[in-house]
Amino acid sequence: MFEKVTLIGIGLIGSSLAHVMKREELAKSVAISTRSEKTLKRAEELGLGDLYVLDTEEAVKDADLVIVCTPVGACEHIAKTIAPHLKTGAIITDVGSVKGSVVAQMQPHLPERVHLVPGHPIAGTEYSGPDAGFASLFENRWCILTPDQKTDEAATAKLKLFWQKCGSHVEIMDAHHHDLVLAITSHLPHLIAYNIVGTANELETDTRSEVIKFSASGFRDFTRIAASDPTMWRDVFIHNKEAVLEILGRFSEDLSSLQRAIRRGDGDHLFDLFSRTREIRRSIIEIGQDVDAPNFGRDEGEE
Amino acid sequence: MFEKVTLIGIGLIGSSLAHVMKREELAKSVAISTRSEKTLKRAEELGLGDLYVLDTEEAVKDADLVIVCTPVGACEHIAKTIAPHLKTGAIITDVGSVKGSVVAQMQPHLPERVHLVPGHPIAGTEYSGPDAGFASLFENRWCILTPDQKTDEAATAKLKLFWQKCGSHVEIMDAHHHDLVLAITSHLPHLIAYNIVGTANELETDTRSEVIKFSASGFRDFTRIAASDPTMWRDVFIHNKEAVLEILGRFSEDLSSLQRAIRRGDGDHLFDLFSRTREIRRSIIEIGQDVDAPNFGRDEGEE
Repeated sequence: MFEKVTLIGIGLIGSSLAHVMKREELAKSVAISTRSEKTLKRAEELGLGDLYVLDTEEAVKDADLVIVCTPVGACEHIAKTIAPHLKTGAIITDVGSVKGSVVAQMQPHLPERVHLVPGHPIAGTEYSGPDAGFASLFENRWCILTPDQKTDEAATAKLKLFWQKCGSHVEIMDAHHHDLVLAITSHLPHLIAYNIVGTANELETDTRSEVIKFSASGFRDFTRIAASDPTMWRDVFIHNKEAVLEILGRFSEDLSSLQRAIRRGDGDHLFDLFSRTREIRRSIIEIGQDVDAPNFGRDEGEE
Repeated sequence: MFEKVTLIGIGLIGSSLAHVMKREELAKSVAISTRSEKTLKRAEELGLGDLYVLDTEEAVKDADLVIVCTPVGACEHIAKTIAPHLKTGAIITDVGSVKGSVVAQMQPHLPERVHLVPGHPIAGTEYSGPDAGFASLFENRWCILTPDQKTDEAATAKLKLFWQKCGSHVEIMDAHHHDLVLAITSHLPHLIAYNIVGTANELETDTRSEVIKFSASGFRDFTRIAASDPTMWRDVFIHNKEAVLEILGRFSEDLSSLQRAIRRGDGDHLFDLFSRTREIRRSIIEIGQDVDAPNFGRDEGEE
């Protein structure tokens, strides 16, 4: 599909892309660039690409597709750095969980002769780094692209095909709308998970070890999400501040109302809510966005 | 182990107990009693017990062990009903997620010639009803017993052995302390999950279907917990009000501080918290209370 693809950043998403590009033969040559020498060396040991370059300017030379796979906070610096060295007609994309900010950070610095098509694969695990990637990460998952009205349609179409070849279903969406939807489906859940695990972490040592011991009663589900990459998530919250605060406001209002119901012993209020929430789970399973096996099908007997 | 065991209530926990008692031959005869005629019929179709009785008074006759497997709000009524019909020396236990309230509801009504030993198996799935049970539910999971100083030690020891034969590790704990620990590990996580799914449920129809579609980005983990049995959870919050409100207070304080950090763009505050929370996940995996497979090992390719 491409002569040369450059991956800037080689964490979970970057390394998964490297694996799937190799399996599907999507690029003749894959260049990998990352800020940390150690990580770059690890990528080379894993044989993730064909070229390993610390210098980003060098890495993007002659690339037909540049995929920025760093935390979203690094986008502006990268755009500034690579801009003068990009091949005419190159497609520049990213994989960040926030889209409005990525456009604002990158677009002003990029020359008109290249095509910025922001992207976000809705796929991941709680693990990070070049060892965490695997070729099937994007299979049957959504990838959202957020081109604007000025974006070259051929570039968008080509990137769409690329993600389809990676196994994903592609959805085109407005960047601002993406940021609102993801604030609900992803950013708030992560914030809440980090917060509850943080609350537990503040407990006296004895109680904390009991919390860990008896975590199978609900808590452990949250700890998976709260084990996600700290840098990535710091940047998400900083760069999607408005939408996150808006959704957090609604969440807090609802929580106050639940709190009041518990204080008053209003069982009907609780029962009504707890019945309605079951429906959403059913819908998610129906459309294949989660497994219906109890406890996510954890193989607990084998632990 | 027992001549006759009576299960009052035959949902997820009751039916799982029926399965494991059969497999391990823990009782010569198992009587099943439940309020709903339909559920009782289903239990009979599934062959879960030996005796199927709508009348609870009848069901507990001659039983050596009575296990109350209903939502905790039903305990007082059950204690009153069965008290005059219990065999001398019988052990009465339950499986409720709250212990202080169960003791308060049951102890005053039970005669001195029987032994109340409250219990709580830390095991479950998001499914409920007699079809949801399976024999290995309790394997390698904790079961907490909360006898008090007056409880007959032989009765506690016998019930402990019973749960061990069901595959569980048994922990003895003070009822009040149990309720505080579980408020953190279980009740608050459920409340938060119900709340966030409720918040999503209030969105306009279009946005809601997008939330379902893109739920793999974090949200879906919460929907599993928020699909738990509404009656059971209504009763938990009503009957562990004090501890839940105390822990909810701490959670809300911490959330306000996170909110402030986002508003101010305080990345260091966020990064610090997000780094600390990873440790707890590691501890949970180390002691075998969760799997270390990415995404809980969901078999997503097979969907």
